[in-house]
Amino acid sequence: MSSSLHEEMLQIARQAKLASRALALLTTPEKNLCLEAMASALLENAAKIKEANARDMVAATQAGLSTAMLDRLRLDDKRIENMARALGEVEQLPDPVGRILDERVRPNGLRLQKIATPIGVVVIIYESRPNVTADAASLCFKSGNATILRGGREALYSNSVISTVMVAAARAALPKFPEHAIQVVQTTDRDAIRELLSLTLYVDLCMPRGGEGLIRAVTDCSKVPVIKHYKGVCHVYVDCAADLEMASRIVMNAKVQRPAVCNAMETLLVHEAVAGKFLPGVAALLAASKVAIHADSAATAILQPSFAGTLSPASEQDWSTEYNDYEMNVKVVSGLREAADHINNYGSGHSDAIITGDDASAKKFLAEVDSAAVYWNASTRFTDGGEFGMGAEIGISTDKIGARGPMGLEELTTYKWMGFGDGQIRS
Amino acid sequence: MSSSLHEEMLQIARQAKLASRALALLTTPEKNLCLEAMASALLENAAKIKEANARDMVAATQAGLSTAMLDRLRLDDKRIENMARALGEVEQLPDPVGRILDERVRPNGLRLQKIATPIGVVVIIYESRPNVTADAASLCFKSGNATILRGGREALYSNSVISTVMVAAARAALPKFPEHAIQVVQTTDRDAIRELLSLTLYVDLCMPRGGEGLIRAVTDCSKVPVIKHYKGVCHVYVDCAADLEMASRIVMNAKVQRPAVCNAMETLLVHEAVAGKFLPGVAALLAASKVAIHADSAATAILQPSFAGTLSPASEQDWSTEYNDYEMNVKVVSGLREAADHINNYGSGHSDAIITGDDASAKKFLAEVDSAAVYWNASTRFTDGGEFGMGAEIGISTDKIGARGPMGLEELTTYKWMGFGDGQIRS
Repeated sequence: MSSSLHEEMLQIARQAKLASRALALLTTPEKNLCLEAMASALLENAAKIKEANARDMVAATQAGLSTAMLDRLRLDDKRIENMARALGEVEQLPDPVGRILDERVRPNGLRLQKIATPIGVVVIIYESRPNVTADAASLCFKSGNATILRGGREALYSNSVISTVMVAAARAALPKFPEHAIQVVQTTDRDAIRELLSLTLYVDLCMPRGGEGLIRAVTDCSKVPVIKHYKGVCHVYVDCAADLEMASRIVMNAKVQRPAVCNAMETLLVHEAVAGKFLPGVAALLAASKVAIHADSAATAILQPSFAGTLSPASEQDWSTEYNDYEMNVKVVSGLREAADHINNYGSGHSDAIITGDDASAKKFLAEVDSAAVYWNASTRFTDGGEFGMGAEIGISTDKIGARGPMGLEELTTYKWMGFGDGQIRS
Repeated sequence: MSSSLHEEMLQIARQAKLASRALALLTTPEKNLCLEAMASALLENAAKIKEANARDMVAATQAGLSTAMLDRLRLDDKRIENMARALGEVEQLPDPVGRILDERVRPNGLRLQKIATPIGVVVIIYESRPNVTADAASLCFKSGNATILRGGREALYSNSVISTVMVAAARAALPKFPEHAIQVVQTTDRDAIRELLSLTLYVDLCMPRGGEGLIRAVTDCSKVPVIKHYKGVCHVYVDCAADLEMASRIVMNAKVQRPAVCNAMETLLVHEAVAGKFLPGVAALLAASKVAIHADSAATAILQPSFAGTLSPASEQDWSTEYNDYEMNVKVVSGLREAADHINNYGSGHSDAIITGDDASAKKFLAEVDSAAVYWNASTRFTDGGEFGMGAEIGISTDKIGARGPMGLEELTTYKWMGFGDGQIRS
């Protein structure tokens, strides 16, 4: 690792730490003033942003990026307007800093308050979409954190201009806005991430967003805490006491409404007592939506006679695969015990649902399945900051230390204990 | 790394994960029944425990351990009674699992509950005191976690017997108590920790307790989240608006009441406007308690004429030193700004106090000092699970992701989101 790269990352991280101290002291109106100015500035500087984006697009086209990747990278007026609107939405959200999370007065009169505070310096690592730059930076800023952004190399010009425009606008609106509150890593050196994430004295948290490969690489090299989800292998378990019509609606929604997202269902588990009655109907609906099915032998035996779609045997590996596509697994289970074990063994701890009319079974499932979000008679698709009423979301966590599940502004804070005394000493 | 070591750690971790699933489902009365049985069994098996401890003591004496280390290692009837009593206290504490941390009903009728759950598998790494085995295991158990204990090699027989006695008692009282709920790592291979802390699929958290060297070594090699504090470099800042009599009492308490603990004061910062008036008196009291002082030049100039104790110039390194002894630093600062900067730069983010009669200064200090616990007119010595009303404490965290400050039972839990629907799908 070159020492100049080390120096470069050290400077970014130190600057961010100093900025974070100033950010922690901004009032809610001051932060909102900045967000409003940032949103306006994105619109006013749309031409400049599109120009930088065009430069990225030319290089990406030459580099042979796929059409899908190029589409993600592209910024047009509509997308810039959406970025600005998202900043306006963050402005409207309640400030998560300063919430009193707990309060107690001790017998000696010492009053203790547990107060929500910013985390400090947050590193966001992401792939091609440049709108993440504005979204992530605005959420981190509203929660009082300094942000270090490391986007895909193909989006470097776009990301840099977006961040520069936001910082300049905030400083014009509020002179004490610290200039290093939002920084984009300028080097495309692959070692930059490892270097940055070794600086535990300055960096408090890393949140990688993107494919499993990226996230594993980040987690493997990081010395600072990482909050992430590798993938979303979500399940719906249709119990023997399920309302099968409801089950069918939920299964279709969980799989088909938006298959490419992490909270979409990948595996359907069906109680053996209702499999014969339930599976042929729901499978026909799935086939009509062009969903290919990988099935265990019991499900295959039920489906084979009538199924018109693509059916293949599920392999061991299929059970832990996130298809992100019109493709899924089906398994017949002997009951709740097997369903919960299957989910705990093959799932990703993301979002899993039980469909049942039986209270006791539902409670057992909710208790036993060790996932960030567990649902009773609802679609897995609800695991989302917006759907949870958090406003914008910066990501979803399947970790257990720090935030779990959707992460909004509150999940971008930590806390400190404040003790108010009148001379108390310990005896 | 030997593959047999890998296999051994893998087996322990897998067993712990399976046990954790069963533990998560135990009711509060079931857990309390086990804790009561464990406490009784420690008393009933005192002879057996002392026998194992004697074996450890012989080996430790032969290995040339210091008198202080030998004293930590020693178990006698009194210490075994204390262990049993501590288990009884954990039994009395409220169960942290199942608390409803948040609840909301969405416009579509979906009810969401954020529920406290066990973390899963917790590894505790510690040094010589065998009582930590019972303390840590009981706190992890009450919070529904499986524990893997790795104590000092010198205490292996003692730790093993304590854990065996506890598990056997719990199983006799509650047959479904999972036998791998509490495990002691039997190998003394140094690589065991690295191996164990690479098993991210099974281990959810590591909490090292002990000296800074141990904690840094664990943190450096761990792939699982670590919650810890490296050291406690705590400050008291005596403001220009301080009640100097109160300041003197708090400084004495923070330094002298128990200097060897992490929440004891290491550095006294004094506002220049009151330094001349305050320092000679408090320094005389400190000198009477045999406290050696490392002072900056301004403090030295004030103290030199009259000070009867040990006075030397403070080096750059002294400002970040945890003396854990009758030794401390004194610095004169120009005001709150310099005090807060000094604390944020040289402190350990543990516990820091301001003594002042001025509201605005106090609030500024509490906001700006980025530490787990910040005090206004109270001693730093209060950072402690017992003093915070948490009951027993498993450690203190200066981290920001996960628990911060004293860690009791609630801090040994995470949460999951439960969604209660009646057929909701996402549109």
